[in-house]
Amino acid sequence: MAATGTTGPTTATNETALIARIAASVARRPGVALGIGDDAAVLDGDPPLVVTQDLLVEGVHFTRATTTWRDLGHKALAVNLSDVAAMGAVPVAAFVGLALPRTQRPDAADVDALYAGMEALAAQCGASIAGGDVTDAPGSAVMLAVTAVGRMEPGVAPVRRDGARPGDLVCVTGALGAAAAGLALLRDPVLAAALPPAERDALHAAHRRPRPRLAEGRALAVLGAHAMLDVSDGLAIDAGRMAAASRADVEVDLAMVPLAAGVARVAAGVGLDPEELAATGGEDYELLVAVDAAGHDAATRAGVPLHPVGRVLAGDGALRVVRGGDPVRLPRLGWEHGT
Amino acid sequence: MAATGTTGPTTATNETALIARIAASVARRPGVALGIGDDAAVLDGDPPLVVTQDLLVEGVHFTRATTTWRDLGHKALAVNLSDVAAMGAVPVAAFVGLALPRTQRPDAADVDALYAGMEALAAQCGASIAGGDVTDAPGSAVMLAVTAVGRMEPGVAPVRRDGARPGDLVCVTGALGAAAAGLALLRDPVLAAALPPAERDALHAAHRRPRPRLAEGRALAVLGAHAMLDVSDGLAIDAGRMAAASRADVEVDLAMVPLAAGVARVAAGVGLDPEELAATGGEDYELLVAVDAAGHDAATRAGVPLHPVGRVLAGDGALRVVRGGDPVRLPRLGWEHGT
Repeated sequence: MAATGTTGPTTATNETALIARIAASVARRPGVALGIGDDAAVLDGDPPLVVTQDLLVEGVHFTRATTTWRDLGHKALAVNLSDVAAMGAVPVAAFVGLALPRTQRPDAADVDALYAGMEALAAQCGASIAGGDVTDAPGSAVMLAVTAVGRMEPGVAPVRRDGARPGDLVCVTGALGAAAAGLALLRDPVLAAALPPAERDALHAAHRRPRPRLAEGRALAVLGAHAMLDVSDGLAIDAGRMAAASRADVEVDLAMVPLAAGVARVAAGVGLDPEELAATGGEDYELLVAVDAAGHDAATRAGVPLHPVGRVLAGDGALRVVRGGDPVRLPRLGWEHGT
Repeated sequence: MAATGTTGPTTATNETALIARIAASVARRPGVALGIGDDAAVLDGDPPLVVTQDLLVEGVHFTRATTTWRDLGHKALAVNLSDVAAMGAVPVAAFVGLALPRTQRPDAADVDALYAGMEALAAQCGASIAGGDVTDAPGSAVMLAVTAVGRMEPGVAPVRRDGARPGDLVCVTGALGAAAAGLALLRDPVLAAALPPAERDALHAAHRRPRPRLAEGRALAVLGAHAMLDVSDGLAIDAGRMAAASRADVEVDLAMVPLAAGVARVAAGVGLDPEELAATGGEDYELLVAVDAAGHDAATRAGVPLHPVGRVLAGDGALRVVRGGDPVRLPRLGWEHGT
């Protein structure tokens, strides 16, 4: 998830290194088909299950100033269901751990709103909030730990991030940049007031209530996408993850990045290049997929929107960012957080 | 888990009420056989899966003064595997969320020790640490969110806590009070020094490295135990939970409670009644089961230790504590935390 400014790339890089350390220190035993390192783990079964967990910490991943309790509930579940979608699975259940701080403790109505936001999204997706834990905590930060469990459809294999092949198209399932633009507007009311209300509301909603691309993920798994992950931390960083996992280079062309409505206007208002904002902003939760030409055509025929943003090349796992074919150096790739 | 003194029954009762509120606000949808309210949720499948989550917060559930990082890792996984055991399931995977505070931040060696403690227990139990998340957090408290997934053996149904029937024996799988006595010794070095070293070490170990009763849980599920849960917050409170869920009264007789070695000596040292300490101390992680006489005999023949501590009576879900048949009023039942 995008940071609120209280954390940044330096800390995040440490977290990525820490996750790699942890992954190297644990063994994968029978019953687990895929462990640490993808959007979700895969447990053996017929059908297989996927399991993912995300922490959301106040002051790191959200602030009360820009997030209502209901929106926080929606988002905490949505980011986990997005990981379920990125494996091509159908969500079944979510488990919610909530740490309530002693200082600035949310009241009962806040907690009700938080769970109402989760329950409304769970109902839309056919999932159940089936367990969890609630505890007192020192300090003043609310912390949420959500674990989501999904189930593959019979005969469909989970789509990992490490299957991209040279020659594949790299595509996203929708326009990018709306969530980052929405967050920029929440921080800059003067800029927000200058936008057409419908456009502003849509950008706010993209930030506050991301929609997990569950139908798209299922369809792409059925159609045999080679690799898939969700665009949580930004197209550039997530494309880099696909490249590294697949041991192939991924080229992203900024000129091909589809911009959500209003992103160009917001980017101009905050002095950023619009394609850079869209490629690094994060939190759009579109799916990033590697498919061959036949897979792309099949997805299009099936009504799954796929916008090519680059291609897979032979290489050792590097990200290459270009604009119209010319190399570009981005000032930053996005926000690195645990997966 | 037992509190460190920074939380207590008042807050905990609020948490129990909050969990009930949350449970009433969410729906159970297809794919989930059992939702909030037992040791673990049950997801449909062949075989069914069980899923449980626990939060451990520094200053609430543990302190660095009395817990090493390795022991914390062991315990964080053990308390979740104990919930898997209490359903009669076989553990498969664990997902670990770790929030690292900015103040008093653990260093890399601490984090390594934490995961080493989890991995050693996972290896013993055939489970895998298969995912999770790591994040920066404000404040100074470490927070751990562990989700464990288990699988039933073919043809064996999960054992819920709501199946106790009038006429059943209520039994525990081992002696109680060791964990509470161990914690008391950690807080009272003078008393600890007065104990025989082997006895002291065993009590410390009971507190620091509880063993999830996985083999016992599997056997009791196969043998058809009527109701089961783990003794996490204390025999009295957990027996009360069985009674309430089963809508039958549960009578616990303090005179029947098996005391772990050294508990009587520690209880005398801190001025407590030993059976009361054993019945309310919590964190022993023995299993509490309701079985009929045939089930009790079958378990005994199968080598599963079952110590009767009471019986199930017709009633509306009350806990009755007696000593040799005479009613007793306990000053407190134990530590209430989320399940």
